[in-house]
Amino acid sequence: MKVIIVGGVAGGASCAARLRRLDEKAEIVLVERGPYVSYANCGLPYHVGDVIEKESSLLVATEQMFRAIFAIDCRTRCEAVALSPKDKTVQLKNHATGEVMTEKYDKLVLSPGAAPIRPPLPGIDLPGIFTVRTVPDAKAIREWLERGSSDLAEEQDSATFQPLVKAKRAVVVGGGYIGLEMAENLAHRGLEVTIVEMLDQVMAPLDPECARLVERHLEKHGIRLALNDAVAGFKQTETGSLEVFTKSGKVYPADLVILGIGVRPETALAKAAGLEIGQRGGIRVDEHMRTSDPNIFAVGDAVEVKDFVTGEWSLIPLAGPANRQGRIAADVIFGRDSKFRGTQGTSVLGLFGATVAMTGANEKLLKRLGQTDYEKVYIFPNSHAGYYPGAKTIALKVIFRKSDGRLLGAQALGQDGVDKRIDAIAMAIQMGGTVYDLEEAELCYAPQFGSAKDPVNFAGMAPSDVLRGDMPLVHWDSLDGGFLLDVRNPPEIAAEAVPGAINIPLPQLRARLGELPKDREIFLICRSAVRAYYATRILLGNGFKARNISGGMFSRSMLVAK
Amino acid sequence: MKVIIVGGVAGGASCAARLRRLDEKAEIVLVERGPYVSYANCGLPYHVGDVIEKESSLLVATEQMFRAIFAIDCRTRCEAVALSPKDKTVQLKNHATGEVMTEKYDKLVLSPGAAPIRPPLPGIDLPGIFTVRTVPDAKAIREWLERGSSDLAEEQDSATFQPLVKAKRAVVVGGGYIGLEMAENLAHRGLEVTIVEMLDQVMAPLDPECARLVERHLEKHGIRLALNDAVAGFKQTETGSLEVFTKSGKVYPADLVILGIGVRPETALAKAAGLEIGQRGGIRVDEHMRTSDPNIFAVGDAVEVKDFVTGEWSLIPLAGPANRQGRIAADVIFGRDSKFRGTQGTSVLGLFGATVAMTGANEKLLKRLGQTDYEKVYIFPNSHAGYYPGAKTIALKVIFRKSDGRLLGAQALGQDGVDKRIDAIAMAIQMGGTVYDLEEAELCYAPQFGSAKDPVNFAGMAPSDVLRGDMPLVHWDSLDGGFLLDVRNPPEIAAEAVPGAINIPLPQLRARLGELPKDREIFLICRSAVRAYYATRILLGNGFKARNISGGMFSRSMLVAK
Repeated sequence: MKVIIVGGVAGGASCAARLRRLDEKAEIVLVERGPYVSYANCGLPYHVGDVIEKESSLLVATEQMFRAIFAIDCRTRCEAVALSPKDKTVQLKNHATGEVMTEKYDKLVLSPGAAPIRPPLPGIDLPGIFTVRTVPDAKAIREWLERGSSDLAEEQDSATFQPLVKAKRAVVVGGGYIGLEMAENLAHRGLEVTIVEMLDQVMAPLDPECARLVERHLEKHGIRLALNDAVAGFKQTETGSLEVFTKSGKVYPADLVILGIGVRPETALAKAAGLEIGQRGGIRVDEHMRTSDPNIFAVGDAVEVKDFVTGEWSLIPLAGPANRQGRIAADVIFGRDSKFRGTQGTSVLGLFGATVAMTGANEKLLKRLGQTDYEKVYIFPNSHAGYYPGAKTIALKVIFRKSDGRLLGAQALGQDGVDKRIDAIAMAIQMGGTVYDLEEAELCYAPQFGSAKDPVNFAGMAPSDVLRGDMPLVHWDSLDGGFLLDVRNPPEIAAEAVPGAINIPLPQLRARLGELPKDREIFLICRSAVRAYYATRILLGNGFKARNISGGMFSRSMLVAK
Repeated sequence: MKVIIVGGVAGGASCAARLRRLDEKAEIVLVERGPYVSYANCGLPYHVGDVIEKESSLLVATEQMFRAIFAIDCRTRCEAVALSPKDKTVQLKNHATGEVMTEKYDKLVLSPGAAPIRPPLPGIDLPGIFTVRTVPDAKAIREWLERGSSDLAEEQDSATFQPLVKAKRAVVVGGGYIGLEMAENLAHRGLEVTIVEMLDQVMAPLDPECARLVERHLEKHGIRLALNDAVAGFKQTETGSLEVFTKSGKVYPADLVILGIGVRPETALAKAAGLEIGQRGGIRVDEHMRTSDPNIFAVGDAVEVKDFVTGEWSLIPLAGPANRQGRIAADVIFGRDSKFRGTQGTSVLGLFGATVAMTGANEKLLKRLGQTDYEKVYIFPNSHAGYYPGAKTIALKVIFRKSDGRLLGAQALGQDGVDKRIDAIAMAIQMGGTVYDLEEAELCYAPQFGSAKDPVNFAGMAPSDVLRGDMPLVHWDSLDGGFLLDVRNPPEIAAEAVPGAINIPLPQLRARLGELPKDREIFLICRSAVRAYYATRILLGNGFKARNISGGMFSRSMLVAK
């Protein structure tokens, strides 16, 4: 058995190691176009930011290790340039010598990854414009930050040459994961950063109202945001710095530009070989990671995978699934029945001391798919018991199926304990869990870690109350015709009132029921929807029609335009 | 409908509030013997330690709140002293006036809690010996720490009176949760602390080898441990300080003694009324929290609950389950079909910067129950990606069923990310998950939060490898007859060698197979059992008999006697 793996890093390298563990005698060839067989690409922004100081820290597994421990024929700076499924051969080009060899395989594993999108805009190739995919990319950015571009210096006339000042202003194009991580790390190094994003929100996997919280957090930390605007082109000034032009006509000066627009599956080789490509542009594989050719497998960022929650094909360029897919392909090659369960898009981002995390489907996607059998709640629990110092509010949106309570997705932002809650919910989603399961979850509780009712329990209790009919719900964007009743205390109202709302503080409510209409729906308001829930119960128990406005003033602030 | 709830805090208070939310008209009476209807008893040690500075922080919900928001007839310093299920009456004693009234109920909820055990030892009632259950307890300890005992001063002859020096030495009797939390908090206030524990380990819910790690951590932080020894009595010295005598004949001087021996369900009222008591000494209830009398419910630390994993009756005095039980009793009283699923004993302890957490069954319990259909692995993953600064090792023991991979329990200790992993595993256990589910779990990954293969994934992968036959396992306590092969590098061996083990560094293994016996089982050793796993695969693939020693040198250090 001879297996050739095209592309290292998460998917390819884990596949290669697993293949060897499963079979001591197979011939395993791992070819990688770049200089490193396996590196921590998720660490690249932090290397630029000097949080990870040494480049060597990023080299997770070396070529030498692969040879010595896994007896793998490991070839770096070696690229697969053509593929013949019929002959079961692949042409490999050695970039050191330029030589191209044709090599036979029994099984082939494609792990080419996804390339950062570099749109064909005027000036896109100017020095100082970078993408962030490889260790050499990070190195180039670090060098550019530290001493300006030597390429640029050489190109310029020595008489008029002005050495670049150390970079002071950066424009990050794209407000996704890489864009935001780069923005934080460049700010960490003292740069003024502007993010230009074509969409009306950062972090597309979040729903827009949740993205608002991220945007405010970014701005609070000095990042400038230019949403709803797209880059039209780049120019170089006489001093060698850059100008970024946008479609709206704005010009942003920059000493450095990072392209974080997104990635595109590298499918050229697969396409040329006639392998099936999916409608999202990734290599199509079955649950065994097998392509349309039975002897060719594909894993990682280049493949389309089934969304575990919606069943839709999607592109999820994440390291965790890539690792699992690599292992599964290896299993299947050696006759095992391993299957990829699909992905649920669990992801996390650290950002200036805050954490943003999510799992499962977002509401945008459900809407796009035309689904209506879902409801959402917004809750704002403390990260740990409020009586223990240091508790922080977590903003948590939970999406669930109305018909049976099945969990569909969750999005969270906060300064503490966010990843932990999303992990617990991710596990519940994976197991087909419902909001009732979260309600009953038995999680770690001591006052510095959580609460007797953990945020995860609240994430189940509030939806369960809705589904059992105990807490009719309404959202800020659909309050037509309701009677607004704010049950906060007067000092809270004085700080921020809702136009048109009547105020009766919760403790006075039973005594003042006579002031309320019996013929209209009463929509309840408080800070985080807890007191308003109590008020809802009081009103329903006294014959009124009442609904709680999910998330109260907290969720209202998410909807207010910036 | 009139409901009387006996006892506030987690179980009783949450029941009362839920009752009101379910029915606006019911008469709800909440009686609480102490001065506070609901307080954060899990915060008491931290109030003693001055981490929670203000007593008022501990008062989660006040009598006033219960009246104003929930219209509950809330009576503090009021004790239920007798109960007649036949007449549906309870006698309530007002401790302020001494008056006893008989009151009728339709439904009664018992939430009496559990009392700290105060064994009848000589000197047990001397001043300076405290239990930690209530806010007044914490207040008394704080006062004692700050200015010595005024009681003591009054009792002494004014001529010979010596004011107590500020407390310097504390003895904590019992190494359970409260004992360890008190030890940390007293140390935090500058006291020298000795823990006297009857068992051969601290933290009985942990298996002994895991407790070893806790014990070492305590000792590293200056706590003295006296295991395998029981307190025989207490004496007061002439200066007013105490001496603690143990059965082994030791004497520990102390300015303060904390009794953290454990708690005992308060069942006097229930017993006198003829309600069924379980074999573990708690009030027996069904899954609806109903006692043997159909109109009486019981919740919280006083009841026996089914262990979710083993099906055994157990006493689990934890706030989370108490809260849920209170809600369930309220539901059932108003005709809903809510059920308590049982408890899985998820718990957590913060200790000098480390976290100890666990969920599900421990091995001691499985052994006691005579179960043999289980296996265990020890793993030592990083809390987050090793290439990002600050990663810490997590020690994790996972117990699973051999026949089907079902998760049975997990125990973990580390400085970062421990509670998060136990929460994810707790959720999987609740959902009936297997080690294969952990293997496939899709959790938050960015380098500062986790790894592409999260510790939770490793907690599934290692057991899955065992169950699939890919990684035959052996433990340090059953190495008889095996050939010991250590695949670490020479510098690691130089630092700590295993007697009798042969060394072949992993990268040389394939070249040196001739040095190994084909007729004996080869037991593989490395630091954390990862390289040894690779070596196991190499040996198995070359026709040898091989087993990996679970957890490698890390788990070996857990077994070495102190």
